[in-house]
Amino acid sequence: ISSNAYSEIYNSTNAAQPLKALDTLQRRHLGPTPENAQYMLGQLGYSDLEEFTKAVIPEDILVRRALKVSPAQGYTETEMIAHLREIASKNKVYRSFIGKGYYNTIIPPVVQRNVLECPEWYTSYTPYQPEVSQGRLQSLLNFQTVVCDLTGLPVANASLLDEATAGAEAVLLSYHSMKGKKSKYVVDTNIHAQTLAVIQTRANTLGIEIVQLPLSTAEGVEQLAAIQTEISGALVQYPATDGSINSYAKVGEIVHANHGLLSAASDLLALTILEPPSSFGADIVFGNSQRFGVTLGYGGPQAAFLATITKLNRKIPGRIVGVSKDRLGNPALRLALQTREQHIKREKATSNICTAQALLANMAAMYAVYHGPEGLKNIAKRVFGFTSILAEQIATKHTLVNKNWFDTLTIELNGVSADALMATAVEKYQINLFKVSDSQVSLSLDESVTEKDLTDLVELFTGSQLDTSAIVKLPEFYSDLTRSDQILSNPIFNTYHSETSMLRYIHSLQTKDISLANSMIPLGSCTMKLNATVEMLPITWPEFANIHPFAPDNQCQGYAELIDNLEADLADITGFASTTLQPNSGAQGEYTGLSVIKAYFEKRGETQRNICLIPVSAHGTNPASAAMAGMKVVAVKCLNDGSLDLIDLKAKAVKHADNLAAAMITYPSTYGLFEPGIRAAISTIHEFGGQVYLDGANMNAQVGLTSPGDLGADVCHLNLHKTFCIPHGGGGPGVGPICVAEHLTEFLPSHPISRTTNGSDLSIKAVSAAAFGSASILPISYAYIKMMGANALPFASSIAMLNSNYMLNRLQEHYSILFVNSSTIKHCAHEFILDLREFKANGIEAIDVAKRLQDYGFHAPTMSFPVPGTLMIEPTESEDLAELDRFCDSLISIKGEINAYINGDSLGQVLKNAPHSLQDIVSTTQAEWDARGYTREQAAYPLPFLQQNKFWTSVSRLDDAFGDMNLMCTCPSVEEVAE
Amino acid sequence: ISSNAYSEIYNSTNAAQPLKALDTLQRRHLGPTPENAQYMLGQLGYSDLEEFTKAVIPEDILVRRALKVSPAQGYTETEMIAHLREIASKNKVYRSFIGKGYYNTIIPPVVQRNVLECPEWYTSYTPYQPEVSQGRLQSLLNFQTVVCDLTGLPVANASLLDEATAGAEAVLLSYHSMKGKKSKYVVDTNIHAQTLAVIQTRANTLGIEIVQLPLSTAEGVEQLAAIQTEISGALVQYPATDGSINSYAKVGEIVHANHGLLSAASDLLALTILEPPSSFGADIVFGNSQRFGVTLGYGGPQAAFLATITKLNRKIPGRIVGVSKDRLGNPALRLALQTREQHIKREKATSNICTAQALLANMAAMYAVYHGPEGLKNIAKRVFGFTSILAEQIATKHTLVNKNWFDTLTIELNGVSADALMATAVEKYQINLFKVSDSQVSLSLDESVTEKDLTDLVELFTGSQLDTSAIVKLPEFYSDLTRSDQILSNPIFNTYHSETSMLRYIHSLQTKDISLANSMIPLGSCTMKLNATVEMLPITWPEFANIHPFAPDNQCQGYAELIDNLEADLADITGFASTTLQPNSGAQGEYTGLSVIKAYFEKRGETQRNICLIPVSAHGTNPASAAMAGMKVVAVKCLNDGSLDLIDLKAKAVKHADNLAAAMITYPSTYGLFEPGIRAAISTIHEFGGQVYLDGANMNAQVGLTSPGDLGADVCHLNLHKTFCIPHGGGGPGVGPICVAEHLTEFLPSHPISRTTNGSDLSIKAVSAAAFGSASILPISYAYIKMMGANALPFASSIAMLNSNYMLNRLQEHYSILFVNSSTIKHCAHEFILDLREFKANGIEAIDVAKRLQDYGFHAPTMSFPVPGTLMIEPTESEDLAELDRFCDSLISIKGEINAYINGDSLGQVLKNAPHSLQDIVSTTQAEWDARGYTREQAAYPLPFLQQNKFWTSVSRLDDAFGDMNLMCTCPSVEEVAE
Ligand SMILES: Cc1ncc(COP(=O)(O)O)c(C=O)c1O
Ligand SMILES: Cc1ncc(COP(=O)(O)O)c(C=O)c1O
Ligand SMILES: O=C([O-])O
Repeated sequence: ISSNAYSEIYNSTNAAQPLKALDTLQRRHLGPTPENAQYMLGQLGYSDLEEFTKAVIPEDILVRRALKVSPAQGYTETEMIAHLREIASKNKVYRSFIGKGYYNTIIPPVVQRNVLECPEWYTSYTPYQPEVSQGRLQSLLNFQTVVCDLTGLPVANASLLDEATAGAEAVLLSYHSMKGKKSKYVVDTNIHAQTLAVIQTRANTLGIEIVQLPLSTAEGVEQLAAIQTEISGALVQYPATDGSINSYAKVGEIVHANHGLLSAASDLLALTILEPPSSFGADIVFGNSQRFGVTLGYGGPQAAFLATITKLNRKIPGRIVGVSKDRLGNPALRLALQTREQHIKREKATSNICTAQALLANMAAMYAVYHGPEGLKNIAKRVFGFTSILAEQIATKHTLVNKNWFDTLTIELNGVSADALMATAVEKYQINLFKVSDSQVSLSLDESVTEKDLTDLVELFTGSQLDTSAIVKLPEFYSDLTRSDQILSNPIFNTYHSETSMLRYIHSLQTKDISLANSMIPLGSCTMKLNATVEMLPITWPEFANIHPFAPDNQCQGYAELIDNLEADLADITGFASTTLQPNSGAQGEYTGLSVIKAYFEKRGETQRNICLIPVSAHGTNPASAAMAGMKVVAVKCLNDGSLDLIDLKAKAVKHADNLAAAMITYPSTYGLFEPGIRAAISTIHEFGGQVYLDGANMNAQVGLTSPGDLGADVCHLNLHKTFCIPHGGGGPGVGPICVAEHLTEFLPSHPISRTTNGSDLSIKAVSAAAFGSASILPISYAYIKMMGANALPFASSIAMLNSNYMLNRLQEHYSILFVNSSTIKHCAHEFILDLREFKANGIEAIDVAKRLQDYGFHAPTMSFPVPGTLMIEPTESEDLAELDRFCDSLISIKGEINAYINGDSLGQVLKNAPHSLQDIVSTTQAEWDARGYTREQAAYPLPFLQQNKFWTSVSRLDDAFGDMNLMCTCPSVEEVAE
Repeated sequence: ISSNAYSEIYNSTNAAQPLKALDTLQRRHLGPTPENAQYMLGQLGYSDLEEFTKAVIPEDILVRRALKVSPAQGYTETEMIAHLREIASKNKVYRSFIGKGYYNTIIPPVVQRNVLECPEWYTSYTPYQPEVSQGRLQSLLNFQTVVCDLTGLPVANASLLDEATAGAEAVLLSYHSMKGKKSKYVVDTNIHAQTLAVIQTRANTLGIEIVQLPLSTAEGVEQLAAIQTEISGALVQYPATDGSINSYAKVGEIVHANHGLLSAASDLLALTILEPPSSFGADIVFGNSQRFGVTLGYGGPQAAFLATITKLNRKIPGRIVGVSKDRLGNPALRLALQTREQHIKREKATSNICTAQALLANMAAMYAVYHGPEGLKNIAKRVFGFTSILAEQIATKHTLVNKNWFDTLTIELNGVSADALMATAVEKYQINLFKVSDSQVSLSLDESVTEKDLTDLVELFTGSQLDTSAIVKLPEFYSDLTRSDQILSNPIFNTYHSETSMLRYIHSLQTKDISLANSMIPLGSCTMKLNATVEMLPITWPEFANIHPFAPDNQCQGYAELIDNLEADLADITGFASTTLQPNSGAQGEYTGLSVIKAYFEKRGETQRNICLIPVSAHGTNPASAAMAGMKVVAVKCLNDGSLDLIDLKAKAVKHADNLAAAMITYPSTYGLFEPGIRAAISTIHEFGGQVYLDGANMNAQVGLTSPGDLGADVCHLNLHKTFCIPHGGGGPGVGPICVAEHLTEFLPSHPISRTTNGSDLSIKAVSAAAFGSASILPISYAYIKMMGANALPFASSIAMLNSNYMLNRLQEHYSILFVNSSTIKHCAHEFILDLREFKANGIEAIDVAKRLQDYGFHAPTMSFPVPGTLMIEPTESEDLAELDRFCDSLISIKGEINAYINGDSLGQVLKNAPHSLQDIVSTTQAEWDARGYTREQAAYPLPFLQQNKFWTSVSRLDDAFGDMNLMCTCPSVEEVAE
């Protein structure tokens, strides 16, 4: 990690390789040129990057074990694409009629190109700064509106991770709504296997007993009635996994009579024509929105949805977009009811969901906007019509298990085994079906079904040719099951049906938002680095995009190779033995890691170990995950210098010695510091029999320099959407793999249908719907790691730290920096905290600075985490010197405005009125401007660079309270807007 | 074309096809829903689309011959992609070392995704409205700066069609600079064959004699000296086609001594390290910028460049971007010196170039921005180094023809024939070389070359293994040929080298421009319809993108199939026998068509026929092309109602009966009218022995309803970038095929290297560098035609006319409409002309309305063509009713502002100050605002819809005169900006 080595890597002038191609990612990923880096080092008083790195990382932490990632020099971009094409070619894209929650769909090309493949959409952050996020907030509101309209329930969130975890959330919501007093929960037998598995995992860690009953039968209802007072709710699937459509009105009555909640998994496409679950009393409806224009992607990422009755609106897990107004009184959107969220509620949280599936929810919403209610119904009717024709044909030879259907048929085979039929299907027709049992298969049709699919399927099942010319009309959906209410009547779903108008709609939303295409997003703890195009290109290749997660293994060899390699590289990078890629987010990783620790203690017969030590500085998901894993959270103090209080840690460890399960520690700490005492802390925990969980959200300071494994921890999660270049997508997708030491490997999660890499008898059950979580975006991290190579990866970390310390150094003359420059800690790691609390007495809050930064064209740093009243800044290695300076200049200029405010100079008001939307500049009366005592120019162009290139907010400062008091989480009607 | 049929097509409810998939393009391409269409028809007093169409198109014009385009119902989008993938798979992507003006290159992924694949860039129009085009104007200025810096000449244009036509332009520029008095022109023997061919075609039609001499030899120079007084100039290639680098200082001296011009074809990559042609006195330097990050694409589209000495700056063909200032005095860009352009100079023009290659020029410019001077030099040095290593190896077995080189080696083979070696190359290595003669091959290396390429080539040529580990350093470029000046020192080329900063640069430019992603671009005569994503997707597939135009035919079977089919469909649509896709623009099509007519008369021995009748209303390229084809233009009058004066036509035909070659007629006329007398006009011309050329720029009103062939014409061109969905790309690419009747087929252009579809002994020589012109974008038009199918294509035309007449009907109460509503012509065709001349007396000009429209978020209609003082509006079929209404509302609101102006109300000033840039709104002093007498809100938000979604201009109204007087066509230096 010397300056020389940086220069060689950056310039590809490696003398040892005169023939090497020049299109390396390294020089494109890393912001500062070697000359810039030298200048920045100079500002910090160093002459070499190595010297600097050593000064930042305590000696006993810096490991510098050479990574094994190969090729060490990294693939060039061209080589990478070629290599990925080769891997992709090992996946076979056969026709999938497997269903079970995953269906073929046609992504509207205009959405693929202008949302999924558009950096303006995929690089943006979770819309916590609403004034610079109105575009995607609107799209997420559209998503919620689709979900509410189709489920028939009034409140919906802006996505969950997948259908199975959404099911688990429904169970937990029911459990907690009974204050945890009912220990049983009933799940219908006719639901997807993966939903059941994830529910069982989650129920297990909380000690909830899952009772499976056939709730569509009279006996099932009877059995339910028998335990009705012991349950917090019941869960059904509608249409069921076998394809049948049943009413659960009686189930609802019984559950409700006992104050329980009825939950239903459902299908958005079916619901466009089918009576909604609200019709039989469902309180919670959830499902996967994947078939609304999101690829199969070998299982993910895809947006799950969850809707509830009004009464539960403050208990729904996940983010909710709500309608409020801005300072000028105009309608404006923002994330509502944030006080419910896990990062606030910590161990009192009933869910740990943080990163969700915003990008995919937006795609699903756009699909609905593009097709509109009639278009969606036509798709649904066609699916039903084809399924019905097929049913009639198949019934001539085999027996239909389900007597009615929307898109799915379960078939008891006559004269042929499931294996034999499926073998023919694959070999002769390249068709995949789902094996239910040795004598049963099922199949699901979808939007993509063609006449040829139909005739091939008929031939496969019956041996005869379907005469399609005899079909003059498609069978119509059951009249008694047809919904009669209007859906999606809002103009948004009835306006943009030409490609031209859809393109403009997408574009108009996009221009309202800040993304990495505008400027740096210096969010501490979020690592908003480059999401390089070469990394992004493969995810839309059909060989990665169009694979069903339950496709036979021999059709997924490309995925297997990619996953094996990525798991190995991540294990190497973290210093651990093995990896699971199943968790779909960091928080899911936390939960998985703690569940694995629990399973480990179970094997050792130490089931009493249930205490989890967590520093007060920890991210809110840590305690939330521990609570969900059935652990008891004990807080550990921090010292004044920000570091872990080792004495308190020891004291708590001693106190809970018998029951100590784990400690969860973020490293570098959430304060952005390389805690010197980390090794001591780990030893202490081990000494008392606990396991150490390192939260890897800050892994970007460690790669190739040290690692959780090298430090002695037992397990860590990684946020591939931070350190490993998966874009944030405006609030998801994420990938939160965990890496574990050898002794924990056998407990890594299994899956009820698919193979997993580390499955064993001791495996915990599934934590995600798909065995490999969000598989289709794994090429992104894979490509990043393989293009950087072992040689350059450590530079991502050291340059990230250099960027951060350079900014700290520039800003510290103007602002207090938390914890740094005490005698013990001279440098921050890859992020640092600007302390604004001193201005509070004078009336200036962190939010004023955050909002005023928008006028300078910047997204605010992380606000009030980990310390209220502060801003945490993380530049990442991808920002160049000019951008770092523009950001510092802006903060320094704002400091002048703060001084003005404190001195009573009217210019100071610019902070309180920030951000200044275009409307504010244009439409505010001159009298009011005069009263403000600063000019439009001061408001809009406080620094010269803004005159060339400025981002304008589309609304003024949001009024959060108003929206929370008047919660509205679907698109306002024309009348409501007019009000 | 009934309303019923429209509804069936739009809703895919064709009862005959209940199994058809729903993802049809038709409903996405066509703006108005069937309900909208009925409403619009009602407004016009019709109840059915058929009735309306018959009222618009004169009875004897409406043909309604069923098109043969199959499938008649059109492919769905999914089917289209599958079908194109199948075609693509028939192209074989082998490694190309063919060179000869086309080289492999690595498109920076960030440029591919954010420029080439970004509708905001590819759907915009030629930047004639500079205030809404500053982004691409900046990028084109960057292109010009690259060209000037590298060629060493001070003035460059913003692209030409290809290197060969650029060569022809250089010859013509030389010829005309001598006022046509020197009939000879010398071309070096060592230039690319296709450049020579196109020069010969162009020289031939003007009667210039091309003399080929070996100008790098002493004999050649002597022969040159012998004819020095008879020539207007000489043309060399540097490096030459055989790869050698020669100085032409002596040639320059001789040419200059006789006031001639020396032109040099050159290569931008070589010029990053090689002494520029200015060093030996070149006055004109041209070439292809393809290898700066633009795909091979089977020959195009790619941007050619042309630079000259200062003295020629008002004579350069094509568009030039220049630096000027806006009304507020800020630097601002616009197309400079427009009075030079062909559309102004008409038959006095010395070139007919109109549509150029803006999108590709922008990509090339971005490539230079991304790599910067050092990056480019490193690429060039590596290419040279690899070539030198290879030369040394090959020389051990064969004889090198060229003694020095940059990237190209010509090799006299020993012991093996060219055919045998090339067969081995293809079969064993999948490598393509270039065959020079039976015993000679040549090869060119490029940016993409790898170690494996090198070892394979060595093995191929020598049979031995190259030990690359022995190579410790690449050979360095000839010190005596190395340029010593600084190149690309402007900060723009030294700032954006990380992907993050490059993305932001691209994004920041893009946000300054209006494209179809913002709002309708109602440009009369330009047909700015939807460029659908499905149409665009294939062009970046490697199987279309990475094919060298001179690759062996058996590797290009996919292209052959696509081209054959497209040619047949276009012939069917135009009612003609055959098609050539070679011309790269409409104007090139015109030139080609007239040249074909000339050849036809030559065959018949009627070489005296050289009169071309052209109506006064014709587009400027018509007379310009006729002049270039060596014809004499005779103008034909138009009547007061806008129609052709048939009496004048007949009179001119009679007068020139013996010499009548052709008439060029645009249909519907450039006034947007279906001239009733067209058949009579055509008969008249035929009667007097002339051929009829129909300019097909307005073909969008004809498709499936009538056709040039059905009307009796002999030849027409099409602008695939208008009627057939190729995006305008901000001023190119274009494709301008011509379709001809049977008797003209044998004259369609040939190509010196490649097969052409209709080549015969009587073929004219090449008109473009590549046999199939801009082949790689042909999938766009192909996909459009195949997805619409025979059934829906006529609706594109009839809905385009409905949209146009609906607008006309709304606007005619507020504005005068030219020519329509006279007794003869009740309807416009697909466009109409708003007459603003009546306001001139009151001080309001068309430009005021055009600029004020920008404040309403719209690109202006076509201004002052075909009639000065007017705006010509063409909505196309892709705009929906809401957008048509927004545009009409805006023009009606502007009418109110015009009235205010006329009445002396200060609000009227809003027209004169338009457009109101953000800076104007923010920074103009309150005193000035008060003096203006209207508010910022009136300026910015004259209609409510703008408050939701408004495009802001980044500069105020341009000062054209200032820029033309102070011509600056490269990026200003930091000092110049500061001034
Ligand atoms: C320290 C820390 N831990 C955990 C998480 C949770 O990760 P995710 O949002 O992927 O669930 C975060 C997210 O920001 C974090 O900063
Ligand atoms: C009537 C007419 N003819 C010819 C042309 C020239 O076409 P191109 O720009 O493709 O050269 C145009 C272009 O606008 C046109 O409108
Ligand atoms: O893409 C835009 O941000 O306009």
